[in-house]
Amino acid sequence: MLETLTAEIIAIGSELLASDRTDTNSLWLTEKLNSIGIEVKLKTIVGDDDARLEEAIKDAARRSKIVITTGGLGPTEDDVTRKVAARALGRRLSLNETILEELRQKFLSFGQPMPERNSRQAMVIEDAEVLPNPNGSAPGMFIEHEGAAIVLLPGPPREMRPMFENHVQPRLVSRAGSVKVLRRMLRVAGLGESAVDEKIAPIYTKYENPQTTILFNQSEIEIHLTARGRSETEANTLLDHLSEQLEERLGNAVFSFAGETMEQVVGLKLSVGGYTLAVAESCTGGLIAQRLTDVAGSSKYFIEGVVAYSNEAKTRTLDVKRKLLLAHGAVSAEVAEAMAVGIRKRSGADFGLSVTGIAGPGGGSEEKPVGLVFIALADEVQTKSRKLQIPGDRQLVRWRASQAALDLLRRRLI
Amino acid sequence: MLETLTAEIIAIGSELLASDRTDTNSLWLTEKLNSIGIEVKLKTIVGDDDARLEEAIKDAARRSKIVITTGGLGPTEDDVTRKVAARALGRRLSLNETILEELRQKFLSFGQPMPERNSRQAMVIEDAEVLPNPNGSAPGMFIEHEGAAIVLLPGPPREMRPMFENHVQPRLVSRAGSVKVLRRMLRVAGLGESAVDEKIAPIYTKYENPQTTILFNQSEIEIHLTARGRSETEANTLLDHLSEQLEERLGNAVFSFAGETMEQVVGLKLSVGGYTLAVAESCTGGLIAQRLTDVAGSSKYFIEGVVAYSNEAKTRTLDVKRKLLLAHGAVSAEVAEAMAVGIRKRSGADFGLSVTGIAGPGGGSEEKPVGLVFIALADEVQTKSRKLQIPGDRQLVRWRASQAALDLLRRRLI
Repeated sequence: MLETLTAEIIAIGSELLASDRTDTNSLWLTEKLNSIGIEVKLKTIVGDDDARLEEAIKDAARRSKIVITTGGLGPTEDDVTRKVAARALGRRLSLNETILEELRQKFLSFGQPMPERNSRQAMVIEDAEVLPNPNGSAPGMFIEHEGAAIVLLPGPPREMRPMFENHVQPRLVSRAGSVKVLRRMLRVAGLGESAVDEKIAPIYTKYENPQTTILFNQSEIEIHLTARGRSETEANTLLDHLSEQLEERLGNAVFSFAGETMEQVVGLKLSVGGYTLAVAESCTGGLIAQRLTDVAGSSKYFIEGVVAYSNEAKTRTLDVKRKLLLAHGAVSAEVAEAMAVGIRKRSGADFGLSVTGIAGPGGGSEEKPVGLVFIALADEVQTKSRKLQIPGDRQLVRWRASQAALDLLRRRLI
Repeated sequence: MLETLTAEIIAIGSELLASDRTDTNSLWLTEKLNSIGIEVKLKTIVGDDDARLEEAIKDAARRSKIVITTGGLGPTEDDVTRKVAARALGRRLSLNETILEELRQKFLSFGQPMPERNSRQAMVIEDAEVLPNPNGSAPGMFIEHEGAAIVLLPGPPREMRPMFENHVQPRLVSRAGSVKVLRRMLRVAGLGESAVDEKIAPIYTKYENPQTTILFNQSEIEIHLTARGRSETEANTLLDHLSEQLEERLGNAVFSFAGETMEQVVGLKLSVGGYTLAVAESCTGGLIAQRLTDVAGSSKYFIEGVVAYSNEAKTRTLDVKRKLLLAHGAVSAEVAEAMAVGIRKRSGADFGLSVTGIAGPGGGSEEKPVGLVFIALADEVQTKSRKLQIPGDRQLVRWRASQAALDLLRRRLI
């Protein structure tokens, strides 16, 4: 296995602990680090809390070859990164006269005297290289510490990003050597998480590189592969080699190889085949139409959708016979098929796709419980339906039903 | 200021360390914890990395009164939370036969035998209380450990959220003690962020408690109020006092006072008035129908929806005259009104609501640019339409158009 360098990111600032705030710096840094073959193993988000921050820096410096902090380099009392990092690393902090003079000049060039509290930003940790900040007042620092690189960056993205790209990335590239890290994601429909794992574990467990992670997301299984190579080509070859085996094992269940959504995949297949589609929905209430038309350019193949919630609407607009509704109930294979045929006829589309079911929480019975869903697909030649029993709450039943219906069409188009 | 209890959150899963993935669970948890007076001091995001996770749990348990982990409770090899948490806390991990049997039953009820690997999910940490998971297979755990509460929750939000609300929140409330932090959110439609701020800043800036934050979310303005008090009553009184003033200033533009969505508000008004509704959509492609039917019980008032993407569908199913389409184009006040009238007639509903517009990215022209949208509402007496020019990408135009249409109906129902 190729050794990759490991990194940890520490984002500093109480505002990052609010419920409506995401730490976008670490996402950006992760992408940059991955692109030069450095893997992020842990992220910490900590407020202006000296003790916790000190421990976070100490732990990270001990565990990882690269530690990057963002934020807390401002001029105010609660900007504690310099002070706390010095303490965590057991180094002195002292005033750097050159930086102080540069700061004074910077303020003067905007016609102001430097506020006294900004002198704090000229404090430098023992033996740190100072990273210039042309876009702000807080310089960064790069510290070699017991085999690890400790990097302190400012919080504002417009200061942090150029500082990283111009002064940190070149230093890290030379450490990282030539290891490249690439990722790929396969999406699977129609199989459960355990079923997928049972099928593919015998394959992926043979490989340490690429690494495989299986993720369950609403009703999709995502298989994430991460490969390391001495070049992009090598990493890609490793990904190809494993993903081909997984695809072969999972067959048609894999619907997406590069992050495409189900509705994009179905849309593409319809486009390529020159087919058109119309949809009749009951329990999904417009969700399938909405997902399909979320794709730009869908007007080429999406003709019409009907949300026939009431029985009357099913009869009136989809020509589902009242007799059929009375005999089998609205939630039945027969009605699903009649809906698919009905919308196909009304619209003149090549395919008619339908869903009827009980999304809950009310409306279920012993015979027809919440989660019972029928999906149907009609084309020129035939009409097929499938019965599903979907676990989950109303939103989940609706989403999974929409996914299963789209998947039925996708498999028909293969 | 009043003293609060401290918490740390540990989000577990390699996928959370990707550059395109945000840990939304911790945002949600932060809001919930804040609302019961508990302050989040640190968040850790760690991959499927035993050593780092163990250290993270140990550190957090030592520093904070409440530690919540999310993720890593699945059935696969890389779901390491149970094992590593047991080790970090120095407790045994053993198979719980009751949970195993429940898991078997759960799988059987969906007509499948339990895959062997799911038995891993029946492993329980010594002296942990088991938190049931009706929405998935992984139970959670609540562990009292040296004065701290260690809580293990599953990663999928649909499983994590109800588990937290039903089983964790009540336990934490009793610990949180005497400081109560209450939040309230007013939602506003039909006014811009600056307009809202201009109207209400003279009021809210007079108060430090409650604190006021204005957030812009798709097309809604959310006004978040946070009050601290020695009792719920005290906090509530503070909230009432401020929110009444804000509501008076903003009038009908405030559509929600307790977190209700627009579709819930509209649904309630239709229910209470005994009205029925049908919807005809072009550019929103089923989004309005989907939003309305997302509300449980919507079958009472939602009769039918039509997604008439093509001109032919507008003529065929909504009886929009070809002449009208030729004279004004599909995106026009005239066609919007004809669609509203058409769906009302077809369905026999009290109200017909319609949208037609250009969601982009393609299809715009100088005369009719991307973002041009007409919405219309027909009732027994009259038909009204409104022209909108909506900024944003395809998804945003669609969402804002759906919101404006629902808001048109809401105002009609006041």
